Amino acid sequence: MNGEAGFIGLGSMGLPMASRLIVAGHPLRVWNRTPGKAASLVAQGATVVAKPADAAAPGGIVFSMLADDHAVEEVFAPGAGLLERLGKGGVHVSMSTISPAAARRMAEQHGRLGVAYLAAPVFGRPEAAQAGELWICLSGPDAAKERIKPMLAMMGQGWFDFGADPGAANIVKLCGNFMIAAATEALGEALALAEKNGLDRTGVFEMLTGTLFACAIYKGYGGKIATQNYQPVGFRLALGLKDITLALRTAAESQVPMPLASLLHDRALAAVAKGRGDQDWASLALEASEDAGLLAARTHQSHAR
Amino acid sequence: MNGEAGFIGLGSMGLPMASRLIVAGHPLRVWNRTPGKAASLVAQGATVVAKPADAAAPGGIVFSMLADDHAVEEVFAPGAGLLERLGKGGVHVSMSTISPAAARRMAEQHGRLGVAYLAAPVFGRPEAAQAGELWICLSGPDAAKERIKPMLAMMGQGWFDFGADPGAANIVKLCGNFMIAAATEALGEALALAEKNGLDRTGVFEMLTGTLFACAIYKGYGGKIATQNYQPVGFRLALGLKDITLALRTAAESQVPMPLASLLHDRALAAVAKGRGDQDWASLALEASEDAGLLAARTHQSHAR
Amino acid sequence: MNGEAGFIGLGSMGLPMASRLIVAGHPLRVWNRTPGKAASLVAQGATVVAKPADAAAPGGIVFSMLADDHAVEEVFAPGAGLLERLGKGGVHVSMSTISPAAARRMAEQHGRLGVAYLAAPVFGRPEAAQAGELWICLSGPDAAKERIKPMLAMMGQGWFDFGADPGAANIVKLCGNFMIAAATEALGEALALAEKNGLDRTGVFEMLTGTLFACAIYKGYGGKIATQNYQPVGFRLALGLKDITLALRTAAESQVPMPLASLLHDRALAAVAKGRGDQDWASLALEASEDAGLLAARTHQSHAR
Amino acid sequence: MNGEAGFIGLGSMGLPMASRLIVAGHPLRVWNRTPGKAASLVAQGATVVAKPADAAAPGGIVFSMLADDHAVEEVFAPGAGLLERLGKGGVHVSMSTISPAAARRMAEQHGRLGVAYLAAPVFGRPEAAQAGELWICLSGPDAAKERIKPMLAMMGQGWFDFGADPGAANIVKLCGNFMIAAATEALGEALALAEKNGLDRTGVFEMLTGTLFACAIYKGYGGKIATQNYQPVGFRLALGLKDITLALRTAAESQVPMPLASLLHDRALAAVAKGRGDQDWASLALEASEDAGLLAARTHQSHAR
Repeated sequence: MNGEAGFIGLGSMGLPMASRLIVAGHPLRVWNRTPGKAASLVAQGATVVAKPADAAAPGGIVFSMLADDHAVEEVFAPGAGLLERLGKGGVHVSMSTISPAAARRMAEQHGRLGVAYLAAPVFGRPEAAQAGELWICLSGPDAAKERIKPMLAMMGQGWFDFGADPGAANIVKLCGNFMIAAATEALGEALALAEKNGLDRTGVFEMLTGTLFACAIYKGYGGKIATQNYQPVGFRLALGLKDITLALRTAAESQVPMPLASLLHDRALAAVAKGRGDQDWASLALEASEDAGLLAARTHQSHAR
Repeated sequence: MNGEAGFIGLGSMGLPMASRLIVAGHPLRVWNRTPGKAASLVAQGATVVAKPADAAAPGGIVFSMLADDHAVEEVFAPGAGLLERLGKGGVHVSMSTISPAAARRMAEQHGRLGVAYLAAPVFGRPEAAQAGELWICLSGPDAAKERIKPMLAMMGQGWFDFGADPGAANIVKLCGNFMIAAATEALGEALALAEKNGLDRTGVFEMLTGTLFACAIYKGYGGKIATQNYQPVGFRLALGLKDITLALRTAAESQVPMPLASLLHDRALAAVAKGRGDQDWASLALEASEDAGLLAARTHQSHAR
Repeated sequence: MNGEAGFIGLGSMGLPMASRLIVAGHPLRVWNRTPGKAASLVAQGATVVAKPADAAAPGGIVFSMLADDHAVEEVFAPGAGLLERLGKGGVHVSMSTISPAAARRMAEQHGRLGVAYLAAPVFGRPEAAQAGELWICLSGPDAAKERIKPMLAMMGQGWFDFGADPGAANIVKLCGNFMIAAATEALGEALALAEKNGLDRTGVFEMLTGTLFACAIYKGYGGKIATQNYQPVGFRLALGLKDITLALRTAAESQVPMPLASLLHDRALAAVAKGRGDQDWASLALEASEDAGLLAARTHQSHAR
Repeated sequence: MNGEAGFIGLGSMGLPMASRLIVAGHPLRVWNRTPGKAASLVAQGATVVAKPADAAAPGGIVFSMLADDHAVEEVFAPGAGLLERLGKGGVHVSMSTISPAAARRMAEQHGRLGVAYLAAPVFGRPEAAQAGELWICLSGPDAAKERIKPMLAMMGQGWFDFGADPGAANIVKLCGNFMIAAATEALGEALALAEKNGLDRTGVFEMLTGTLFACAIYKGYGGKIATQNYQPVGFRLALGLKDITLALRTAAESQVPMPLASLLHDRALAAVAKGRGDQDWASLALEASEDAGLLAARTHQSHAR
């Protein structure tokens, strides 16, 4: 299998994911819109290619990790060259957070050219990608799954198979992202209540995440929310809004009212409108504090010093 | 210390908590509005008393685990006898889920009679109480905390100290209950989205609670929500509505808007209005399924068989 | 009938209402917690009395227009003297915005002393009270309604009879106040959308209230919302929050989820938490503008000048 | 001007609007996807054309009243023939409820071919169209407005000019539709509260719409909501959902959080998911009754008879 794989998209997630594959002995052909990003991979043995189609070999494997529906559908459009070059027996491992609808559309188009479309979105921040500790959701044709599992094992600590529907894995990804945002809002409201009643935010956070909510999301995001130190920025709030919007549109298409997702959408939109779009996603919790009059008070205090 | 403690309130939580104390060598004087409840404790060595005041010894300790503000404030009202009998040096360990406002009111009244009011609400279902695995939130005077810690160690796997404010521990309890309800709603909406897109609820639940949300609340409540098997009833939905109402009132008094808590309140109120008040609290998640048209479809299917 | 009536509560509504009665030939005995308020009425021929009971004559009529449940229930408590003095054949015309529950409680207590309790809450601002153009909702015993109608005709431009249930008229009052707040929020969101898309707020307002929404509430409140000139303060935002809270509590007691009322509650609570409690009720609409980033922009502009 | 106008789209709104023009002396060339719809217009003197382009004359006027963005953009796409035939000096009067974004896109495309794009969405139900009593929102180039005003006067009782931005009139249309839906929800919740407290829905409705809310929307929709008789279907609930979705997307693009619009969206989506998509838009108010347990009770009663 060595030598045959390509990797499209070298952002903060794609770069460490590709690096893991190379280190494990898969000398990739890589492509990124902004070419400079690939420098560290080249040092590891990757070949930078000039256009996406060059990343593919007939019957080979191409991974993609791009920003959104539009970016993936553009690169993998029938007629753009990449799919045609992959051709019969080829596999596209699509790891971006995109809509199930786009996944289903592409799976059909891929199929006409003999390419297997494998949905493989991931959970985890860049550090988890670097450590090969992502969680991977899979859906699509079984043969393709078997073929790429050794490579997935380099990138993630585990995968979950959601069957043949190419949209299924993305549905799970949207569910997870929505639940992360819900946990953020819940913590934001709870700690605003605690703070305004004279309690220490960190003490309450430590109690809750040391007992009932002793899991990755609550500990990771919760720490930032408790201390209100949102630096460094891991995942931008504006991108979180994009994910919630994706979940809501998918929900609307399948006629599933999600009032909690609507609340999160409106919170995130307010944050962006007030100029917080480039802050960390967890800073969504600031909205609850601001509505409780806590931020103004803090600003006032700092002015008074 | 043996022999001096009383225990008021032998419901589904109070009974196993009192039992833990007796087994550990504290032969309690117990009282319950409905006397029959105490039978198993008598077999273990407890003494049933005829009225609350008889559960107290001068300067002793009395635990209480009752339904709501009203029930606690009635039994511990100045003039009702119990506080007067406890008197100077006495300690009331108040473990019920009540409002911070009631806790503060009582602490002041207790203080005038020399009784220390110790807020000690707990997290955990009846099985956790039976196993001595509750989590306990503490607030109130330090000396009283030290005095009762050996007894708390029989009932819980740990405690968290939130300082001197008698309302503080109850604030944390309300925060936790609110966050549990928020997790329920999030799971309910996410799994409705997954189900309506053809995914297996249990598969999605196992992925999420095996990775990002690998903690007690999501695994415990989530299992019921995934399978939609809400039997047996652990904690009644109508009581959950009471807790959310308590959180919202406390939030209103301290001017903290909690739109997610409002959403949970309206969901729970709808569930009660539609006749689900006696079902398990986790069945709150049925509302999201019903709004997505999933329950009607299921009923229809079962009719069609 | 002349000479027999009393009037309790001379606030911004009670004062002009009492004045209308005096001018129409009903020389009232008036009482207010703060006595100075009655000066203008004395000039018109009213008698100021020292305590509420003195406002009543055996078998006579007493009007009340007070702040909330507590204020009315205190003055009209059995044993406080007023009800006892009114006695058999007496009528209490209760015009305050209070809870249906309080109205029902009082009706029962009044009945035991032979006094008829007539619920008669009103719609209209102080200027409408002054002009005798209030709208009055009535419920209670028919005989009492007939007896006071000539006096109601001095205060209002019409009344609506909602039957015998003493709580009924207050339910309608809560419905109306809720709908006014809902109209405010709807206008606030719509005009924020319009403004941020470059439209003139006043032009949009004039179109909508000149056609589809050509009615008192939209024209009156809408004018303030369109121009964002909330001076002078007619009805304080903090009082509006009280009314929404009353509606939500009544809804909770009767198991009616009102998600729009919850939204309005959270908006009003945020406004109060951010220091807008003493502004006009219509300024609730500022919340939508603030969440859209419009107020910060405006402040920024004015700084830049 | 006679003879030169075309009319595209003869649905429940377009048909009576076209008829008004013909009767006033403008013998239109009409086109509809389903040709049968034009029969009554032919009897009045209209000419049915085979394809949209045939409805246009060089430099003439074409009205359109179609279902959504897609339908309008397809017919008026550059290259499809219609715009090319209209050409320099031509005017497209676009009366459909579409997104401001689509309006702006088309205005630019039209401009390149010398055609003026005039946004002219309308308020009013089919009966209002028949009576020439629509309200028309205008935006676009002034010269085009002047040219078509005599024809607008046949269709509407008035128009409002929102300037040159081709998206502006559609923003106002979305604002209005959102406010109508908000009024529906407010009435739905208020009357559920009233009904569950034993009040007569119609009595409360008559009071409120006879006083504070004495305007077209509240009287028209309110009558249906009060009696819960939603026949005949004027405007389908599924189309109302489409309009709210349009408002929310426009709001998201311009970063304006609209939590009330989100609530309405989720309500409408639930109604559609539960099978009410083909009922009248005003039946959105049933959701509040259902959540209050009132519909189940009613069904139960009717079963019991």
